[in-house]
Amino acid sequence: MRAEKLDGADVLAGKRDEFVLDDVVYLDGNSLGALPAVVPGRVEDVVRRQWGEARIRSWTEGGWWTAPERIGDRIAPLVGAAPGQIVVGDSTSVNVFKALVGAVRLARLDGRDRDEIVVDATTFPTDGYIAESAARMTGCALRPVAPAEVPGVLGDRTAAVLLNHVDYRSGRLHDLPALTAAVHAVGAPVVWDLCHSAGALPVGLDEHGVDLAVGCTYKYLNGGPGSPAYLYVRGESQDRFDSPLPGWNSHAEPFGMRSGYEPAAGAVRGRVGTPDILSMLALEAALEVWDGVTVDAVRAKSLALTDFFLECVEAYVPEGRVECVTPRAHAERGSQIALRCADAGDVMERLIRRGVVGDFRRPDVLRFGFTPLYVGFGDVERAARVLAEVLAE
Amino acid sequence: MRAEKLDGADVLAGKRDEFVLDDVVYLDGNSLGALPAVVPGRVEDVVRRQWGEARIRSWTEGGWWTAPERIGDRIAPLVGAAPGQIVVGDSTSVNVFKALVGAVRLARLDGRDRDEIVVDATTFPTDGYIAESAARMTGCALRPVAPAEVPGVLGDRTAAVLLNHVDYRSGRLHDLPALTAAVHAVGAPVVWDLCHSAGALPVGLDEHGVDLAVGCTYKYLNGGPGSPAYLYVRGESQDRFDSPLPGWNSHAEPFGMRSGYEPAAGAVRGRVGTPDILSMLALEAALEVWDGVTVDAVRAKSLALTDFFLECVEAYVPEGRVECVTPRAHAERGSQIALRCADAGDVMERLIRRGVVGDFRRPDVLRFGFTPLYVGFGDVERAARVLAEVLAE
Repeated sequence: MRAEKLDGADVLAGKRDEFVLDDVVYLDGNSLGALPAVVPGRVEDVVRRQWGEARIRSWTEGGWWTAPERIGDRIAPLVGAAPGQIVVGDSTSVNVFKALVGAVRLARLDGRDRDEIVVDATTFPTDGYIAESAARMTGCALRPVAPAEVPGVLGDRTAAVLLNHVDYRSGRLHDLPALTAAVHAVGAPVVWDLCHSAGALPVGLDEHGVDLAVGCTYKYLNGGPGSPAYLYVRGESQDRFDSPLPGWNSHAEPFGMRSGYEPAAGAVRGRVGTPDILSMLALEAALEVWDGVTVDAVRAKSLALTDFFLECVEAYVPEGRVECVTPRAHAERGSQIALRCADAGDVMERLIRRGVVGDFRRPDVLRFGFTPLYVGFGDVERAARVLAEVLAE
Repeated sequence: MRAEKLDGADVLAGKRDEFVLDDVVYLDGNSLGALPAVVPGRVEDVVRRQWGEARIRSWTEGGWWTAPERIGDRIAPLVGAAPGQIVVGDSTSVNVFKALVGAVRLARLDGRDRDEIVVDATTFPTDGYIAESAARMTGCALRPVAPAEVPGVLGDRTAAVLLNHVDYRSGRLHDLPALTAAVHAVGAPVVWDLCHSAGALPVGLDEHGVDLAVGCTYKYLNGGPGSPAYLYVRGESQDRFDSPLPGWNSHAEPFGMRSGYEPAAGAVRGRVGTPDILSMLALEAALEVWDGVTVDAVRAKSLALTDFFLECVEAYVPEGRVECVTPRAHAERGSQIALRCADAGDVMERLIRRGVVGDFRRPDVLRFGFTPLYVGFGDVERAARVLAEVLAE
């Protein structure tokens, strides 16, 4: 009854029809977003007509060449960025490398020998691995610190700080405005990883003065498996952004075939090599589901979904069987709920067999992602109910 | 008549039916290969069933996770490599960075302070730009030298050498065995860029002891626009390969989510972030056209095609109107013919309007690529005839 009423009042309910879904409750959109219905036809056109018939002409006439910045501009409003600051391409890991090395180089422009990169100690591992490489290759030490403790370790040595907006495991939302301000107070740039926030909640890159940001597009942006990531370089820093991966796509005159490198102006400077067009144009089509959607509406529904899930879990699941790892406070919650449970791996397998798909993160976390564009309150109630059944077995 | 006879004797003639082609003479497969007919259906399956229906399960059950090394093994015989040494992913530029930094680190394992990277001065520009960054980030000087002069500049300072197997502009084939041996004689590793040779002629990576190699897959391998590139790391060097882009996909236990980086064994160590599955699996389908084809047969036809093109150009085009930039000697020729022509840009536009598609490389080069799997001798004759007509206008 509650679920029906909530679904009836859901202003985003109609968006569900724009996705290919079945009777599974899909709560893994924070890992791989569901397929937007517009994508298959678009991909077919890209393959059969643009590649198969127009072939090489599509690079110019078909808009392939400018896709990275065009699609970047399509993502921009979802993360609070004005146009001209985002390019799409490469993986998140590769973009973390560009952003972090670029940040260290920005920090050193004042001539001071800053030599410490601060990185979220709880980060999704790849950011930490890449940060270690970036530190090694820029002569920095790497300092892993929990996000809440970051302000206490900043100082004259700080060359750059790499943080996650939402923790991939716990679903905790970090305070981007306050942490950005703290990093700026010591004169260093900050790099935000938006993988688990973009498309789920307001980010406000421009508003909060973020220097650089990266994110993937296959979670809440539904771009498809391994769809290209993106890089944000704040407008005012672009002419000083010095990429460690200066491929020909970022040259001021890429078809001049000149032996000397001269970086392009603007976001294009973040490009590297030839963009993977199939994945890129599938993403472009997938972004059409955002037409007419505000991030505020998405955030409101996301919080309502996670609130309702917690309420249902409390009502159905025997006390003490699971422990919620995700903060209760809205200001500290992303769009997922993580439940600690001793036998989480086994429980998730059984949930999936019963048509409730979340994922398991070692050693003991059940992760449920709530994508407001296609998850309804009825799904949420069912997921909690099936979880309770599985835990009672 | 000559053309008909040659086509009649062509053992690869039947392969043309495995591509989507029209009445255009497509001599730009050295830029973007034509669409293999098997690709559209496969991509549709990847999008609609693997992503749309199986969703996240496809990462394991659908073979997505292991695609980079599986497809690498499919490319391996085309470049003379045993299995387990190639991974597919990222762009060529990003792979040049991994390979070149990795090469410098290999060279320094003996404790000597090698500090010079030698790079082909005539290279496609991106290799030079990336080499400059790799040099800067490893404390090396960059020394651009024409390939023929490379042996003369090698010495104790040499940290790594980056060379192109076939020159992108002139179509000149460089002597991979001799140059590799020369680099090895000073104890340094060599990185070969195979963009313009893989799929067109024998490479022999294993046979000639090449240390590292990279290449794109959208030219003679027909993987589609911006399809992922590949990285070869010689088996015996893999456990010492130290990637500057150690993303989570190259971790020994990627789903262990450990904060410390521990590199995987084997070719997997060359991976970085989440692979772009749509482009990757389109490439996998495209590689099926190689079933039953030997590289030697491809090379034989390639030389016959370019010989015949030169013969037709000499017969039809007024003397002195164009000058062949590509070497006449088979041992020095790739699978393209480059003709210098003062008004090359304008000439190519007119050729394309008349159904002969090559490309123009500034300032004055007409480039014609011959893909033996789908270009016939009749196409070659027609291209030369139309060229003569255009030049006579």
